[in-house]
Amino acid sequence: MEPYTVIRHGHASYPVFIGKDALADVRSVMDDIAGIRPAYLVTTPQVARIAAERLEAVAFAGEPLLLPDGEQAKSLASIEELAGGLISRGVRRDGVLIAVGGGALGDAAGFAASVYLRGIDVVHVPTTLLAQVDSSIGGKTAVNHPMGKNLLGSFHPPIAVIADVGFLDSLSEQELCSGALEALKAGVIGDTSLFDLIELERDSISRRQLEMLEVVVQRAVAVKAGIVSADARESDQRRLLNYGHTIGHGIEAAMNYEGITHGAAVGYGMIGANAVAVARSLLDKGVAARIDEAVRDLHAGDPPPADVADILRATEHDKKFGGGKRVMVLPRDIGHCVVVEDISREELHLAAERALAG
Amino acid sequence: MEPYTVIRHGHASYPVFIGKDALADVRSVMDDIAGIRPAYLVTTPQVARIAAERLEAVAFAGEPLLLPDGEQAKSLASIEELAGGLISRGVRRDGVLIAVGGGALGDAAGFAASVYLRGIDVVHVPTTLLAQVDSSIGGKTAVNHPMGKNLLGSFHPPIAVIADVGFLDSLSEQELCSGALEALKAGVIGDTSLFDLIELERDSISRRQLEMLEVVVQRAVAVKAGIVSADARESDQRRLLNYGHTIGHGIEAAMNYEGITHGAAVGYGMIGANAVAVARSLLDKGVAARIDEAVRDLHAGDPPPADVADILRATEHDKKFGGGKRVMVLPRDIGHCVVVEDISREELHLAAERALAG
Repeated sequence: MEPYTVIRHGHASYPVFIGKDALADVRSVMDDIAGIRPAYLVTTPQVARIAAERLEAVAFAGEPLLLPDGEQAKSLASIEELAGGLISRGVRRDGVLIAVGGGALGDAAGFAASVYLRGIDVVHVPTTLLAQVDSSIGGKTAVNHPMGKNLLGSFHPPIAVIADVGFLDSLSEQELCSGALEALKAGVIGDTSLFDLIELERDSISRRQLEMLEVVVQRAVAVKAGIVSADARESDQRRLLNYGHTIGHGIEAAMNYEGITHGAAVGYGMIGANAVAVARSLLDKGVAARIDEAVRDLHAGDPPPADVADILRATEHDKKFGGGKRVMVLPRDIGHCVVVEDISREELHLAAERALAG
Repeated sequence: MEPYTVIRHGHASYPVFIGKDALADVRSVMDDIAGIRPAYLVTTPQVARIAAERLEAVAFAGEPLLLPDGEQAKSLASIEELAGGLISRGVRRDGVLIAVGGGALGDAAGFAASVYLRGIDVVHVPTTLLAQVDSSIGGKTAVNHPMGKNLLGSFHPPIAVIADVGFLDSLSEQELCSGALEALKAGVIGDTSLFDLIELERDSISRRQLEMLEVVVQRAVAVKAGIVSADARESDQRRLLNYGHTIGHGIEAAMNYEGITHGAAVGYGMIGANAVAVARSLLDKGVAARIDEAVRDLHAGDPPPADVADILRATEHDKKFGGGKRVMVLPRDIGHCVVVEDISREELHLAAERALAG
């Protein structure tokens, strides 16, 4: 199997494999990349249950080590427990974790790999569309602190990413759309044809048309790969990936991360950002309407029932930890965004209001 | 104040300042290195109490954030609590931790710095001789796992190290000798004149003669700096620093890390390694006797009351997590050591026996 692309971060580089049955080739990928080094499967109970058949390809990595489903994986207590499992199995510095799961599993297993014995290698096998198009690429790991999400973490690039779109077959409509919204975001940032494809093929997404989803993953990965290869750490270029995230994070925090997917929050955040871009005459009103419509079409439900004041409070918190400035990514056109650092409180207010209006 | 040396690890580099009142210049060092970025003092209750006067120099960093004294600092629970303090104070990515304390504090604060918001900068201010000559140099951080010491950690070079030998005035004799034994180790690895100095000036160490201790710190740092600059990660060259540590770790583990200092354990480990080196005809018997005598002179007490079988069990554990080989660093002469990978069980047995014989 040939990699779809190779991501370069400073001195590290890793291949990304994308395909309908990509995990079937995991053994030969491991042979090429890790040689005879021992591999260990890390996953969650839900993935182990739903994808049992597909996981037979990684049987060579032994009985899975389990992290809890969902955000529960992302605590220091879970990391300590996983590390205990690695110690019990005698995993050494030459061990390689194969992390099979969604974004939370990837964040937590990546963090564990980065601190176990001061760092062992990890291969990411993202199983959700969101993780395939976004979180598995770029080398960021994270766990939560009782006082806030993703406040602890590391930069720990994997040695390979295997995005098997076959996993997407069992995703819920909600999860599919969450990933499609992040892919739509990638389209607005840097790939007009990706945007067109998602807009046009909305129904194929619901039908889990895997050939189409494979192309969506490829193109979204290409956008992110181009950005993170140029700039591995959080700065400049990489901030473009935060389109929709200023208000999106605010919505998630205001709703206590419950009752809304990350992609949906980002989608409504894009609607908010578009309103500011139009008000600044950076973006044509018709183009904004087209992006907004694509978001609504993918979300297919009511806008998030959050409170504007709560969203603004959360964005002030992000501002505080981010760098003291109110930053938004604003589109100038589909395929072209800019980072704007002098966002006013009034503009944030407008963005939050428009996002909630849907 | 001019740095004594500058350590280079790949793309990172940091100055090391050594002096009798080096901490008095911390403000100007911070201005040079970190500019106007906000600084935060991290220390332990004991250091805050004993060194209150000396800590006035870092009053600009505000009320100290506290980690527990000793090994208690090195748990994920302590890291989570410290991170909570950082979040409460609104510490952002541009924040700089000033970590003032012994080896355990430095390990834990360095780890916290490496994971808080995916990494913020840290300045190490080691307050024990052991931390000044060894653990503050090289960029390794560590916390313990309930199943074993130092099993979690990271590589996170500081942006500066300030070794103020004035702190050594309040050290116990035991702690002074622990550091002196690590310095003696550095002498055997790579600096004959450092070995001579410690051997000759044994009494000045007990008298806390600071001019002499300053030279000891300088020379030991120079040996470690030479090795870690060449090789930031754990391999090849860097393994030379483990002279005395194969059996030394075994002794510490066999005694459950109680009732023996790290330096003393390493010292007796050196005696064990010397016996193997003599048996292999790598090292002259008289030279071995001279090193052994210097160790005994610094320890000035009974050899550790450990059990040979317990030590061997612990070395098998280290072998398992280290790379599957029995490795020892053996001296060929004072100032010249080699890494030997084909150590037999019999040789380990000999080393453990001789170490315990003292």
